[in-house]
Amino acid sequence: MRASVQSLGSLVVVLLVAVPEEPPALRGYGAPASRIERDWEAKFRAISSPDTLRETMRHLSARPHHVGSPYDKANAEWILARFRSWGLDAAIENFEVLFPTPRERAVELVQPTKFAARLVEGPVAGDPTSSQQQEQLPTYNAYSADGDVTGPLVYVNYGVPADYERLERMGVSVKGAIVIARYGGSWRGIKPKVAGEHGAVGCLIYSDPRDDGYQAGDVFPQGPWRPQDGVQRGSVMDMPLYPGDPLTPGVGATRAAKRLALADAPTLTKIPVLPISYGDAQPLLAAVRGPVAPPEWRGGLGITYHVGPGPAKVHLRVRSDWSTRTLYDVIARIPGTGAPDQWIIRGNHHDAWVNGAQDPLSGQVALLDEARALGALVRQGWRPRRTIIYAAWDGEEPGLLGSTEWVEAHADELATRAIAYLNSDTNGRGYLSLAGSHSLEKFINAVAREISDPETGLSVWKREQLRRIALAPSAEERRDVREREDLRIDALGSGSDYTPFLQHAGIAALNLGYGGETGGGIYHSIYDDFYWYTHFDDTSFVYERALSQTMGTAVMRMADAEILPYDFTNLAETVHRYAADLRELWTKQLDEVRERNRELEEGVFTATADPRVTSVPPRPESLPPHLNFAPLENGADALARSAARYERALATAQADGGAALGRPDAGGVNELLLRSERTLTRPGGLPGRPWFRHLLYAPGRYTGYGVKTVPGVREAIEQRRWSEAEEQVRVVGGALVATAALVDSAAVRLEALARR
Amino acid sequence: MRASVQSLGSLVVVLLVAVPEEPPALRGYGAPASRIERDWEAKFRAISSPDTLRETMRHLSARPHHVGSPYDKANAEWILARFRSWGLDAAIENFEVLFPTPRERAVELVQPTKFAARLVEGPVAGDPTSSQQQEQLPTYNAYSADGDVTGPLVYVNYGVPADYERLERMGVSVKGAIVIARYGGSWRGIKPKVAGEHGAVGCLIYSDPRDDGYQAGDVFPQGPWRPQDGVQRGSVMDMPLYPGDPLTPGVGATRAAKRLALADAPTLTKIPVLPISYGDAQPLLAAVRGPVAPPEWRGGLGITYHVGPGPAKVHLRVRSDWSTRTLYDVIARIPGTGAPDQWIIRGNHHDAWVNGAQDPLSGQVALLDEARALGALVRQGWRPRRTIIYAAWDGEEPGLLGSTEWVEAHADELATRAIAYLNSDTNGRGYLSLAGSHSLEKFINAVAREISDPETGLSVWKREQLRRIALAPSAEERRDVREREDLRIDALGSGSDYTPFLQHAGIAALNLGYGGETGGGIYHSIYDDFYWYTHFDDTSFVYERALSQTMGTAVMRMADAEILPYDFTNLAETVHRYAADLRELWTKQLDEVRERNRELEEGVFTATADPRVTSVPPRPESLPPHLNFAPLENGADALARSAARYERALATAQADGGAALGRPDAGGVNELLLRSERTLTRPGGLPGRPWFRHLLYAPGRYTGYGVKTVPGVREAIEQRRWSEAEEQVRVVGGALVATAALVDSAAVRLEALARR
Repeated sequence: MRASVQSLGSLVVVLLVAVPEEPPALRGYGAPASRIERDWEAKFRAISSPDTLRETMRHLSARPHHVGSPYDKANAEWILARFRSWGLDAAIENFEVLFPTPRERAVELVQPTKFAARLVEGPVAGDPTSSQQQEQLPTYNAYSADGDVTGPLVYVNYGVPADYERLERMGVSVKGAIVIARYGGSWRGIKPKVAGEHGAVGCLIYSDPRDDGYQAGDVFPQGPWRPQDGVQRGSVMDMPLYPGDPLTPGVGATRAAKRLALADAPTLTKIPVLPISYGDAQPLLAAVRGPVAPPEWRGGLGITYHVGPGPAKVHLRVRSDWSTRTLYDVIARIPGTGAPDQWIIRGNHHDAWVNGAQDPLSGQVALLDEARALGALVRQGWRPRRTIIYAAWDGEEPGLLGSTEWVEAHADELATRAIAYLNSDTNGRGYLSLAGSHSLEKFINAVAREISDPETGLSVWKREQLRRIALAPSAEERRDVREREDLRIDALGSGSDYTPFLQHAGIAALNLGYGGETGGGIYHSIYDDFYWYTHFDDTSFVYERALSQTMGTAVMRMADAEILPYDFTNLAETVHRYAADLRELWTKQLDEVRERNRELEEGVFTATADPRVTSVPPRPESLPPHLNFAPLENGADALARSAARYERALATAQADGGAALGRPDAGGVNELLLRSERTLTRPGGLPGRPWFRHLLYAPGRYTGYGVKTVPGVREAIEQRRWSEAEEQVRVVGGALVATAALVDSAAVRLEALARR
Repeated sequence: MRASVQSLGSLVVVLLVAVPEEPPALRGYGAPASRIERDWEAKFRAISSPDTLRETMRHLSARPHHVGSPYDKANAEWILARFRSWGLDAAIENFEVLFPTPRERAVELVQPTKFAARLVEGPVAGDPTSSQQQEQLPTYNAYSADGDVTGPLVYVNYGVPADYERLERMGVSVKGAIVIARYGGSWRGIKPKVAGEHGAVGCLIYSDPRDDGYQAGDVFPQGPWRPQDGVQRGSVMDMPLYPGDPLTPGVGATRAAKRLALADAPTLTKIPVLPISYGDAQPLLAAVRGPVAPPEWRGGLGITYHVGPGPAKVHLRVRSDWSTRTLYDVIARIPGTGAPDQWIIRGNHHDAWVNGAQDPLSGQVALLDEARALGALVRQGWRPRRTIIYAAWDGEEPGLLGSTEWVEAHADELATRAIAYLNSDTNGRGYLSLAGSHSLEKFINAVAREISDPETGLSVWKREQLRRIALAPSAEERRDVREREDLRIDALGSGSDYTPFLQHAGIAALNLGYGGETGGGIYHSIYDDFYWYTHFDDTSFVYERALSQTMGTAVMRMADAEILPYDFTNLAETVHRYAADLRELWTKQLDEVRERNRELEEGVFTATADPRVTSVPPRPESLPPHLNFAPLENGADALARSAARYERALATAQADGGAALGRPDAGGVNELLLRSERTLTRPGGLPGRPWFRHLLYAPGRYTGYGVKTVPGVREAIEQRRWSEAEEQVRVVGGALVATAALVDSAAVRLEALARR
């Protein structure tokens, strides 16, 4: 019998080894709640289906569905019916917004030869929706001023402020000229704004084949890139001032809302602007003479790029129908059972410029699949602690209209109820891109560790980490990627519906999507359609499923947490990095001005000017004064201390099964935490643009979509407003101290909870 | 009378103030000799004449004058007559060299469509010499193997080794293929060599419009850049193995010289190669499919660049007339009076690919103007201390034939007599470019300080310094430019006639030329002619005059110096920098291999591979062993010590009027100094290429013209031959110690001279 006992002993050992170790409890969950949550999340992720995702995209992209179009409304009603069929409490919320559509468009070369731009995207054989010309919105830039202008043409590269500085050095002025800028280098709305500020009377924006046409890869329909006639539509309203309906800044554009007169709307362009294809741009650019464009300005057309002005003379005419249109935001709810007045909001827009398979439907279909799966879980008995809101926004393309008006209309509720906003927009094959509030950095890293990458079987977190190792520009950055516990998430600028939530209402936000493996040049053209998407991008819809799994897991985990899973240590560390950035920005400016002044004294500019080429030396500038960054750094230090205390308190509370977290009065901690992103805002907003209230993240006034972190300070330094910079340092420092105090209070409550 | 005395007193003061301070004595000159030298140099510089320069260029460029052509011989005889008319002792020296010229040339696309390349540069209206088709050498690459091959086409970017590594990562092989490479990134001869090493059967080289065609600027005749039909001819012999006649390595190609059989000549290509225009390249490249070329490989054609292989299939046929031709080197002398057996040699080639206004005549006409002016000075009574040799080389274009054969034929005399070789090749508007032996760095800096820049009136030294400040990539480099006494001169690789002097015979050399303001794309085409040069480059011939002034001043100052103006402090400092470079190269390799191995272990390459694109991970490699750099650094230290001692001795000898320098036994110092560059060579040459003997400078085996400093060590590290690297460190260290000993001896003699 001894032998038999020995066998049993071995068996016991084997069993002990084979039992999987229980993963650590989720952040903000006691052990039992964590176990239950993981089970539901796993069930959720098993529901998502590539076939459903594909069929949803096929349906929604079947016809053009821009704001005001019949199919936009039809899609909204179809989405509404879906939500309801899955058991969600859904409704359509309407707003009345200014949305200009083209009436007249003309671009003509009138000198030295004649050429009339076609301004038409042609149908492509084999691609059925490309021929739906009756319903397609013509190529244009929404919110362009009306105008009928003629002037010499000047090529301004990307048309950003640095390009005009370069032109000035070349002795070229755009006063009275029509500029032609290529897409890229900034958000498109910056181009007519800066052109107008420099005295241009009109603006053309074209897609250079080097950037997203044949030089980037094979063009549609042979490949995914922009064909000769492809045009990028898009809004040019001054969104960095405020997005949403130009006539109702700060308030919901309900039928009854008080409206600005059209003439007083500050976010319309001052000069007419029109986008064109590279097929139409080529004859115009080929006719420009004057200095040869600097090497980095040259694109992929088979010509010598000149700057002008002229002799090419262009006539540009733009007239819009300035009607008001109805938006159809589809809003669906799954009421929370524990804390119904705490809202997790998940959104993606449904309107497109034309058929919009990639933008926005590749995000929208994931959202719908999440809602379908959550509906199924509810039928299986799942009851989220908090209220979940699924939103299919209308009118994102013209200017984040649907989300902005909704946020403005619901501002009071959101201020007291909103926990987080989770956004997507487009999605494709490749890597998870992570951006958002740094208070959610740890949270979303944890989610990403559990999603499986369809192509490699690695977690999407791991694959993204390995990609960052591959791309890191320095050993130091590689070390950061390898050794830091969490992948850094990007700060949010603008360009999608998170902006009103994060930057106006101060709600912690995330923006997620997969991509990076399939390039393409169909953005905002008629070729962004089902044919393109199913031939070139996520053809098997497995990354659609991955997005749905990622987003749904995040929504559920946020909705069910006993203690909201914010973290402030990563936030504080990030703010310290921003502070170091700002110091470096200032130092770099100082060094540049000092060096330039020295070179002016030495005669470098005159000595190196080619006498055959006009060359204007820069002007000497006064040196930037020293700035007091201490309030910012003290604020970040205070936040770091509070964050560390809070982390210790949470760890204590989660120890030994985390029973403390389940107590009813844990809600008090959440009441505090809920306000933590709000304390990073300022009611009066940023200097010169009160609508933007977040002190850490904003789109740049001269970058558009590109983020400016600590924007009040950063833009003041960039634009050399030194006293404003100092003032803004104090403002941000104060907000950080207030946030630290809030986090401290939360820590105190949590400590008390754990002690009992 | 007091008043009158007072007036006289004032006058004296005024006179004292007005007398210009005498500049310090020239290096290696006592005060009286220095004064006399400056006077003659000033007279010399006043003689040079833009009109003469222009007319000389007009004459010499009037017809095509490649090796073996009637006008090549006629030019040589014309130059000979000029030299004689100016009073120089001149003669033509002939060599018999292998120089293949085209018999058959064909490039055809045979699949998927048919296209036959034109291979013709068309005449241009208004440009008279462009239509001299009877005498123009067709477009071809001299020393291409004969061949008739057909294969799939592969685009290999610049066709350098790194490009093949990239192809390997893409899973693309060139075995059995015809490759098409663009000009640039290396000397052209590297492209067929590397292609052949990788198994390609043929090679096309084309000029991409991004590099020197319409993307660079307006094309000829509207501008200076390469038109659609323009082709870059050029030699593809394996010059990094040895230049000169392929059949007579190491010996002068006299009629009687022993010759290799054609089949045994190692410097001919192994596969056929032909250059083509971008007009001819476009249909070929447009027909290539397979992976899209990496972004940095894409050129300026209006197509998507693919890599292949195929489906484009190309037929390439090249057959040459492998005749021997006669070279006409024109050699002129002004005998020295003090030290006639010490030679200063000044050269520039006279042969061209076609009319060659820029290459080589823009250098040749300056040389001739110098000779004219020196002849005039001799008539005025100037008698150089040393013998001056002016050489107009033939056969530079095919492979430095005229200079190499002359150096090989005169090797023994040169070893004991040559002081320095001063080369130019092409010249244009802009900045003085300085390259050569670092023992001449101080010397040529001093010359450059006295030449006036035609456009700014600054010294050409100052203008170049200010340009370097403008272009310096870092504050550290700017500081070096601002604070170092001398502008650093570049090390010489290859590509012109200095190579046999410096790298085979160990003669200190300089290569100078102006340029950098006028770009152009006529290199080695029929459009490099008088029309082009006088419309787009140094149209007023003032930079031709500047080159003549610079070179002539250098020749005179070197010829007349009492003590040869070598300096070894800058040389030693430069060698220290090279040693640091080599350490850094090794460290970089170590870091790269370590990082790559780590990424392979982490799975970075598999995780980041797009499954739709073939991607082959690199292989793990063993880490480079640590190397002993000490012999090199000790050698540099020894040289630095000797150099410092020599400088002190020279300063002492030059003090108080420098009468010591004028003593007859000062010649003993010069006897030693004369050998100083020779001690930096090794009779057995570099590993694998005994012809190249200089231990500090050589063209790279895989860069061609590009220099490799400390080539024995550097290439061993680059190519991972570790024991060879260690051995070469010892070789170079030994040579530096020997040079240090020589310099020490010279210092001892100089000290003795000064003491007496």
